[in-house]
Amino acid sequence: MQSCAKSWGILFAKSVNPQAPCRHINGKSRIFGKQQNRIQTLNACVTVRGLRTSAVYAASRQIDRILPRHDDFAERHIGPGEREKREMLDVLGLESIAQLIEDTVPESIRIQRSMKMDDPLCENEVLEHLQKIASKNKVWRSYIGMGYYNCSVPPVIQRNLLENSGWVTQYTPYQPEVAQGRLESLLNYQTMICDITGMAVANASLLDEATAAAEAMQLCHSYIGVKTVLKLPHEMDFSEKDVSGVLFQYPDTDGRVEDLTTLVDRAHKGGALACCATDLLALCVLRPPGEFGVDIALGSSQRFGVPLCYGGPHAAFFSVKENLVRMMPGRMVGVTRDAAGKEVYRLALQTREQHIRRDKATSNICTAQALLANMAAMFGVYHGPQGLKHIAERTHNAALILAEGLKRAGHRLHSEMFFDTLKVGCSVAAKDILARAVQREINLRVYGEGVLGVSLDETVTERDLDDLLWVFGCESSAELIAEKMGERVKGIMGSPFKRTSKYLTHTVFNSYHSETNIVRYMKRLENKDISLVHSMIPLPITWNEFANLHPFCPLDQAEGYQQLFRQLEKDLCEVTGYDKISFQPNSGAQGEYAGLAAIKAYLNSKGDAHRTVCLIPKSAHGTNPASAQMAGMKVQVVEVDKDGNIDMANLKALVDKHKANLAAMMITYPSTFGVFEESIDDVCNLIHQNGGQVYLDGANMNAQMMGAKGLVHATEVAILNANYMAKRLESHYKILFKGFCAHEFILDVRPFKKTANIEAVDVAKRLQDYGTLMIEPTESEDKAEMDRFCDALMGIRQEIADIEEGRMDARVNPLKMAPHSLASITSSTWDRPYSREYAAFPLPFVRPETKFWPSISRIDDIYGDQHLVCTCPPMDVYESPYEEKRASS
Amino acid sequence: MQSCAKSWGILFAKSVNPQAPCRHINGKSRIFGKQQNRIQTLNACVTVRGLRTSAVYAASRQIDRILPRHDDFAERHIGPGEREKREMLDVLGLESIAQLIEDTVPESIRIQRSMKMDDPLCENEVLEHLQKIASKNKVWRSYIGMGYYNCSVPPVIQRNLLENSGWVTQYTPYQPEVAQGRLESLLNYQTMICDITGMAVANASLLDEATAAAEAMQLCHSYIGVKTVLKLPHEMDFSEKDVSGVLFQYPDTDGRVEDLTTLVDRAHKGGALACCATDLLALCVLRPPGEFGVDIALGSSQRFGVPLCYGGPHAAFFSVKENLVRMMPGRMVGVTRDAAGKEVYRLALQTREQHIRRDKATSNICTAQALLANMAAMFGVYHGPQGLKHIAERTHNAALILAEGLKRAGHRLHSEMFFDTLKVGCSVAAKDILARAVQREINLRVYGEGVLGVSLDETVTERDLDDLLWVFGCESSAELIAEKMGERVKGIMGSPFKRTSKYLTHTVFNSYHSETNIVRYMKRLENKDISLVHSMIPLPITWNEFANLHPFCPLDQAEGYQQLFRQLEKDLCEVTGYDKISFQPNSGAQGEYAGLAAIKAYLNSKGDAHRTVCLIPKSAHGTNPASAQMAGMKVQVVEVDKDGNIDMANLKALVDKHKANLAAMMITYPSTFGVFEESIDDVCNLIHQNGGQVYLDGANMNAQMMGAKGLVHATEVAILNANYMAKRLESHYKILFKGFCAHEFILDVRPFKKTANIEAVDVAKRLQDYGTLMIEPTESEDKAEMDRFCDALMGIRQEIADIEEGRMDARVNPLKMAPHSLASITSSTWDRPYSREYAAFPLPFVRPETKFWPSISRIDDIYGDQHLVCTCPPMDVYESPYEEKRASS
Repeated sequence: MQSCAKSWGILFAKSVNPQAPCRHINGKSRIFGKQQNRIQTLNACVTVRGLRTSAVYAASRQIDRILPRHDDFAERHIGPGEREKREMLDVLGLESIAQLIEDTVPESIRIQRSMKMDDPLCENEVLEHLQKIASKNKVWRSYIGMGYYNCSVPPVIQRNLLENSGWVTQYTPYQPEVAQGRLESLLNYQTMICDITGMAVANASLLDEATAAAEAMQLCHSYIGVKTVLKLPHEMDFSEKDVSGVLFQYPDTDGRVEDLTTLVDRAHKGGALACCATDLLALCVLRPPGEFGVDIALGSSQRFGVPLCYGGPHAAFFSVKENLVRMMPGRMVGVTRDAAGKEVYRLALQTREQHIRRDKATSNICTAQALLANMAAMFGVYHGPQGLKHIAERTHNAALILAEGLKRAGHRLHSEMFFDTLKVGCSVAAKDILARAVQREINLRVYGEGVLGVSLDETVTERDLDDLLWVFGCESSAELIAEKMGERVKGIMGSPFKRTSKYLTHTVFNSYHSETNIVRYMKRLENKDISLVHSMIPLPITWNEFANLHPFCPLDQAEGYQQLFRQLEKDLCEVTGYDKISFQPNSGAQGEYAGLAAIKAYLNSKGDAHRTVCLIPKSAHGTNPASAQMAGMKVQVVEVDKDGNIDMANLKALVDKHKANLAAMMITYPSTFGVFEESIDDVCNLIHQNGGQVYLDGANMNAQMMGAKGLVHATEVAILNANYMAKRLESHYKILFKGFCAHEFILDVRPFKKTANIEAVDVAKRLQDYGTLMIEPTESEDKAEMDRFCDALMGIRQEIADIEEGRMDARVNPLKMAPHSLASITSSTWDRPYSREYAAFPLPFVRPETKFWPSISRIDDIYGDQHLVCTCPPMDVYESPYEEKRASS
Repeated sequence: MQSCAKSWGILFAKSVNPQAPCRHINGKSRIFGKQQNRIQTLNACVTVRGLRTSAVYAASRQIDRILPRHDDFAERHIGPGEREKREMLDVLGLESIAQLIEDTVPESIRIQRSMKMDDPLCENEVLEHLQKIASKNKVWRSYIGMGYYNCSVPPVIQRNLLENSGWVTQYTPYQPEVAQGRLESLLNYQTMICDITGMAVANASLLDEATAAAEAMQLCHSYIGVKTVLKLPHEMDFSEKDVSGVLFQYPDTDGRVEDLTTLVDRAHKGGALACCATDLLALCVLRPPGEFGVDIALGSSQRFGVPLCYGGPHAAFFSVKENLVRMMPGRMVGVTRDAAGKEVYRLALQTREQHIRRDKATSNICTAQALLANMAAMFGVYHGPQGLKHIAERTHNAALILAEGLKRAGHRLHSEMFFDTLKVGCSVAAKDILARAVQREINLRVYGEGVLGVSLDETVTERDLDDLLWVFGCESSAELIAEKMGERVKGIMGSPFKRTSKYLTHTVFNSYHSETNIVRYMKRLENKDISLVHSMIPLPITWNEFANLHPFCPLDQAEGYQQLFRQLEKDLCEVTGYDKISFQPNSGAQGEYAGLAAIKAYLNSKGDAHRTVCLIPKSAHGTNPASAQMAGMKVQVVEVDKDGNIDMANLKALVDKHKANLAAMMITYPSTFGVFEESIDDVCNLIHQNGGQVYLDGANMNAQMMGAKGLVHATEVAILNANYMAKRLESHYKILFKGFCAHEFILDVRPFKKTANIEAVDVAKRLQDYGTLMIEPTESEDKAEMDRFCDALMGIRQEIADIEEGRMDARVNPLKMAPHSLASITSSTWDRPYSREYAAFPLPFVRPETKFWPSISRIDDIYGDQHLVCTCPPMDVYESPYEEKRASS
């Protein structure tokens, strides 16, 4: 799961007419790019001209010489120092980085120009600059609603989770032994969603509410091309049995709460599924969808303690009935057991995911919003059921007071049953009301034609209500209205819609309500997880001016954001050679989908609706096939040759076979095998000549933070790092697709299956014992870190040799038994044919004082999938000391 | 060492005439209070009337009922919930908290009024409120200097250290086994100070530069009453051999750099010591004081990456020649070995400190600025010698350019040799220059009579220089001036003052210059330390409007600060019953000193200069005697009775004996034995009747963050917690001064010395194995945490019984061998008469997954004091994996 900081997708497009000659990254091919989590993907094809590190940068002005830059962020971000770079080049037998680039990046695909970008800023300058930009945003009180609500972000969660590099990591918990902390938190999230929606199973979040809604309809009707019809509930006709699903909102966008039981029943009788987009806070006092037969409940968990941030990122929730669990999109955390028999957590049902069987994947599920889901989960843990009910009642009561005031002022409410949102038919000119709203710096929802909307939230105070009453011309105050309402203050609580069932009864939601306890709980979870503990520039997303802007506020209140978008577009166009950029896609996977959808729409507009075949090389990014499926294309896999390049013969044959129906080819560039394709030009031409379009996967977001020179240098170092590691390892492992590599390379461990019964998973788990995970040698790693990783791999190779040559048992050995938890190492019982030290401290740099310990033994995936449990297990399996039963005094 | 967040002292005083009848805290005694690190000290004597938790608080307005407070910070801060409070009261056999308070706080000392304080705010409201206050501060560019300089706080350090609750802790590293991280960082600090000043030994920081200067003179002349004479260097007369020390500044406050070798030589010939107040950044290019014979070098380390914050807190540095090391004030980190023979860190020479022999302590050294010293040390680690030299040269060059421009504009410089500060005789009316400065929002130092000062710093840019040149009426630009200066740009670098010696050559200052590396280094140190991981409201001290205000900026730029001070004064006066408050003392210890100094001045003004005896009960706060010594008083210890109260008979005898010379009595209230003295009234009367004054030690700062009701409730819970723990432990340990206690109590382990050869230190070290340290049961701890602590103590009691009854070896047992490091537990070799599990996981709540491990075995204090090493040891003893020599590939 990606962190929010890096999960934004970008769609690039040439603005010239689509029939123009193909041009690629250096101006020869039209492609759609996608932002990657790895800086080095598209970096690697930018110019190598004028290479200068800041250290050798010669200033032309005297003042630049005697008053040089204060601090160079690019140099701070890049791991290896000058001396280390020299040492690495020596190992590679190269004179200079320039020489390495010559040998790595094909001449034909190098840009022959310098990039025009602003000079790099040092960190403090960036922050100062951002502060100025932030000040251009105006933070008004927004009562616009429409899925986005103000909320009180608990500072203790903001500080210890959102702003904590220990939680903000892009690491995907595929290695559950070193990720039990965030898995537990995500399980809390799933439990919370199930409880509040009244559903049986929930996933660990989806990208956003829109994606969740689309996934719901996708689930209802498993093929693409589903026809979407907008109808009022009573207009829905299920009689033809040709409806696969119905999606409705509860409460709806206008705030109305209505009884949808009949609709659900009718849908079921018509053989359709019922999907409900809903609101977690409302459900704390409202009968949940799970109690009136809904099959799928979804929505946004933003208002559970996540800042507005002008629209995202926020985690969507998605929950289903028991019978739909194996069709659930997205990631799910499940309970299983480890090798020691202990109940533990892991990602469940991974076989559905694209990294396992990617050309069979039907759901583009690589993107979750783990960080934001964790924030929402902690919000639930911190407030507990009483706290959430308190907040919901308070919000609802505020709406009741406001509604009463509005009615007294002569306005008409569109619904008498609501949670927090009022649709108001104005008794006076709406423009007068809006003018008063501007005076108080208040945003309302504008429907037009004398109709306004007001959505309240947990932050609303008595003073806010008084201001709103004044804005709507009510002469009374919130206090007086409340006084006169007396016992009539009931609303939902006095109606059949009132929730009667309990929720969040699990101990975890009833134990950490004090500041001290929640901090310790978060810290305890954090400490179970390996994190990269990287720290980029402190995220300004928590600054008031960025955090508290409603996405639908008037544009002139968001000038700071607009400036950021413009600057980013300019820089990204410069890096990629494109003319226009869409920031609409909310993740990399969304970028793929949007790109393919654009290609599909373009083909349709040309009358080529029959073109549906999408070619995807084996070397492509893992999400590609799922995106193609989602976009309604048929995936055709293209082979790669022994060097990792696209197999041109195979490609030509496939193009020939499919040319009548060829829609697109997706290329990840450089590929996941770490190869720059010199044939990229030919590939693009071939596709275009046969009526298809090319989608290119690979870009980067770092252009802004480092400037053009820093960017080039980072790219070079990333390539240097990868090649250095490949060189050190080549005499120990077989490296696929040899020669100088781009940003990554692949070690082939398949031969060890025969020689020592060792598989890739054994090597990966054993790496945990060495305290290091499979890393991408990005530019921010220094030589010492890379050497440790190489040493670990070489150590493991030696252990494999010990098995191969009979010095170590083939069944009970440190690889098969890996990872070794602290519990196993410290036990009095030790019956292994190798020592405790050999297990836990296999190399001198792995030491007791600094070692990161897997908190559990090896996970049992099969057991977990066979016994699927996706909510919090009973407390007695928890390892927390906090719930320990203790002897009474 | 106290954290900055809590280290501010406050001096309370009655504004009525000092001869007025005595009144104590409830209006009957005149005292001086001192802020404590423990919230519960003065809390405990506030009113118990109208006790209401927010849960049972009955609103009088209907709107308060249906729109209650959003979130109550007081309740979040208080650990135990309603159910837990009930359980604890049951254990104590009490009906209610009110009953407990009746039994704990003597009737005679309870306030009979309610406190008038603003309603409590929830956390988000506090932050919003603070943002409004912050916006009243105006952040101009300040070039005032005088010991305070703008600096670029590296965001990576701000975020991961200053804003990280893992580093911001009030925990004093008296237990070095669980504090190796911050001890290492402080050792880095000491090494950095030694290197840069050229001195042999440095301490781990002092409160502020003024304190450092006073401590230097104190060291020179070990008795109080030293006469301070201000003279120009050449006027100093050492010929009478009656001078004990000379303190001078280099560069001086006007920026001048001059050769002080002769002065130092003359001082030494006259038998005096030479003390130099200096500037760390200047010394990166300037010959250091250690190279021209200075005995003591001191100053502020603020400009090494610590925000201005309107004047503090900042860490002072203090370094001495080898021969003075055992006279050094303040805390020092030293190297020693642990039980396993490994080189480790601990506080050195603790025997000088007040907590060991407090009535012999002569230096009030409890306050350091560990957090700020660590920030400065990390600044050095992050920049390294090249980086610091780069910053220093850049700053100096900016001053050279400005000086050249000012001279061209006809102004006169008071000195031609300077580092960063210019004193300028203006060629035009200074008021015109100042008017232009105001236009550009620039603050200058104003000497009066046509003389202005400008101090530059690392943040100065070309644009800043251009603005300054414009302000001073220079028509040229920085660029043009630099161009024309050409090779003449030399200054210090072309003079005999140029530094030629190396500094920061140790590996630690040459390894962590990239962002990734410094974060990992800080995280690695953090993880070795137990921290309370408390998180109060995020400190706003890093907000621009609080962080970047120069202490000597015009008052109208600091209106936000003024508002905070006024509000705090109001609340603290309300809590304490005093009329006026001085915020001048910068720490608790300073508060004591200031209070005693005020008493001394008052007595002197009455012609009672002979009154110098200060009575201090054994139950007083540990710093009291040292403060009295510092203030020139003679300490007379007062006995306490078996219940922990002041022994009135002994007091009366002592007062009678000393009545002619009685100056003051210092009382810590409630005492460190956790007792409320019912006799406080009689004590105050007795002292006043005999011509003395009463100083009361004990106040709190939390009045503001929680409101009156929250404050009272916090006090009650603190008392409840302490009594609950005492009750649970009373059948296992002897508890001194029984009966209901106030906020703390004392377990008597002395009997075990005879019965099992077990001492207090063994129990303390064994507690580390249980993963818990001696805590004060403050209101923020919940019942589960207290139960764990009691369980640990009861477990230890059982272990002692096992020794007493011969079931466990008297020499090799878990107490004597404690703490057990991970290295010892995971070793293949285990020859103890108890199991690994017994050693490491003595109770079910101590589990491998969550246990905090001491990173070393028991420290050897004696060895360390015999072999004093107070700078970083050679790298080969470091346990960092980063410097590991590894096999070449």
